[in-house]
Amino acid sequence: VSPEARVRELGLQIQDYADPPYGGRYGTMKAFHRSGDLVMLSGMTGESREGVVLHPGRVGADLGVEQGYESARLAAINTLGLMRLALGSLDAVAGIAGNLTFVVCTPDFEDLHTVGEGASHLYAEVFGPAAGRATHASIGVMSLSRRNCVELWITVEARHA
Amino acid sequence: VSPEARVRELGLQIQDYADPPYGGRYGTMKAFHRSGDLVMLSGMTGESREGVVLHPGRVGADLGVEQGYESARLAAINTLGLMRLALGSLDAVAGIAGNLTFVVCTPDFEDLHTVGEGASHLYAEVFGPAAGRATHASIGVMSLSRRNCVELWITVEARHA
Amino acid sequence: VSPEARVRELGLQIQDYADPPYGGRYGTMKAFHRSGDLVMLSGMTGESREGVVLHPGRVGADLGVEQGYESARLAAINTLGLMRLALGSLDAVAGIAGNLTFVVCTPDFEDLHTVGEGASHLYAEVFGPAAGRATHASIGVMSLSRRNCVELWITVEARHA
Repeated sequence: VSPEARVRELGLQIQDYADPPYGGRYGTMKAFHRSGDLVMLSGMTGESREGVVLHPGRVGADLGVEQGYESARLAAINTLGLMRLALGSLDAVAGIAGNLTFVVCTPDFEDLHTVGEGASHLYAEVFGPAAGRATHASIGVMSLSRRNCVELWITVEARHA
Repeated sequence: VSPEARVRELGLQIQDYADPPYGGRYGTMKAFHRSGDLVMLSGMTGESREGVVLHPGRVGADLGVEQGYESARLAAINTLGLMRLALGSLDAVAGIAGNLTFVVCTPDFEDLHTVGEGASHLYAEVFGPAAGRATHASIGVMSLSRRNCVELWITVEARHA
Repeated sequence: VSPEARVRELGLQIQDYADPPYGGRYGTMKAFHRSGDLVMLSGMTGESREGVVLHPGRVGADLGVEQGYESARLAAINTLGLMRLALGSLDAVAGIAGNLTFVVCTPDFEDLHTVGEGASHLYAEVFGPAAGRATHASIGVMSLSRRNCVELWITVEARHA
């Protein structure tokens, strides 16, 4: 089953960052950079294109681990929109190369791995357990833009042209 | 207009990291790594080569967003010195591929995007609005070396040799 | 002297991540991603394969800078196991391309560079002062998984096949 077919089966709503380009929200950054078969994506959060944040706050304080997980999942779904913008179709993705996940949390929050799995599970569902598996680290940080609790810094491997 | 010509027009003072190499300050790290056309740079802060920090402190507490912006701009100017060391000339830069910006801030500081624009605007001025636009994320963190408030982790795309 | 010979001389105990693969600990992430000659590694901490953390805690509070250094060194030794898994032998490593080090610390902790040298010194010992020298940044963060105080996000350059 191709990634685009899986997206249809899963019923995922993927934001269209092409019209207007990248949602018209970013004047000084770009959505992606392709160098050979590596595609770097701009940092992505669990926001709607209109800027509505799914779960604003801090994991371990006003947010639980489950809300962090959901934010990571939505951010990962949003990156699918960036991949379509970069490559035309998710079927041009060979795999997720790297996933550096930043999580706003309290000083004593340890379960960063579970939050990060919100993205890891989504990628496995869409690209399969092999291609969807990325090198990964989840890092607890002080703050993110617009009170988002998760931001993903993703590198994708495109199918060789 | 070439990037080197733009640097002259803008009157930018770019530190020379070649004499002594990389300012003689770093014994165990290197300034850049080139792999194909990708050039990774060591983390860069808004310091003079002598180690004088432009705005030491924490954005949202002892520093305002404008001082964070200025620190990101100076750090970006410093990375131009690393690019010259890596490539001989800024005219050999095809574009800025990635810009991961770390900002020391308070827990409730949200406006990381504006701080990061200090670097984004500088790159657009020097390389133009297309080549100077990078994939970007700004992450609020606990601390950085020597009380710097901004550190840039930059990947550059070099012109194909 | 080859890196594998240096490891023997130094008497380093390197964990075997191949049996079971990657220690059987990670179901949703992978140990490494190779793209051309670049090899990205998953985030690595100073833990045994059984999950015993060398120095749990926060540098500047319950941990001193020396314990941070030791944690970074053990994490770097652990990445040697990932490099063997990725490339078969450390002798296939051309150099360490990038080393982004995350350190759990207090808000006023400044000496991130010394903590990061725990990894930098280890790489220099094994790969030599040139190939072991990486682009580097050390970033102070809020928290890491399982109370680790250091996590390394490493990119390796493999010898051209």
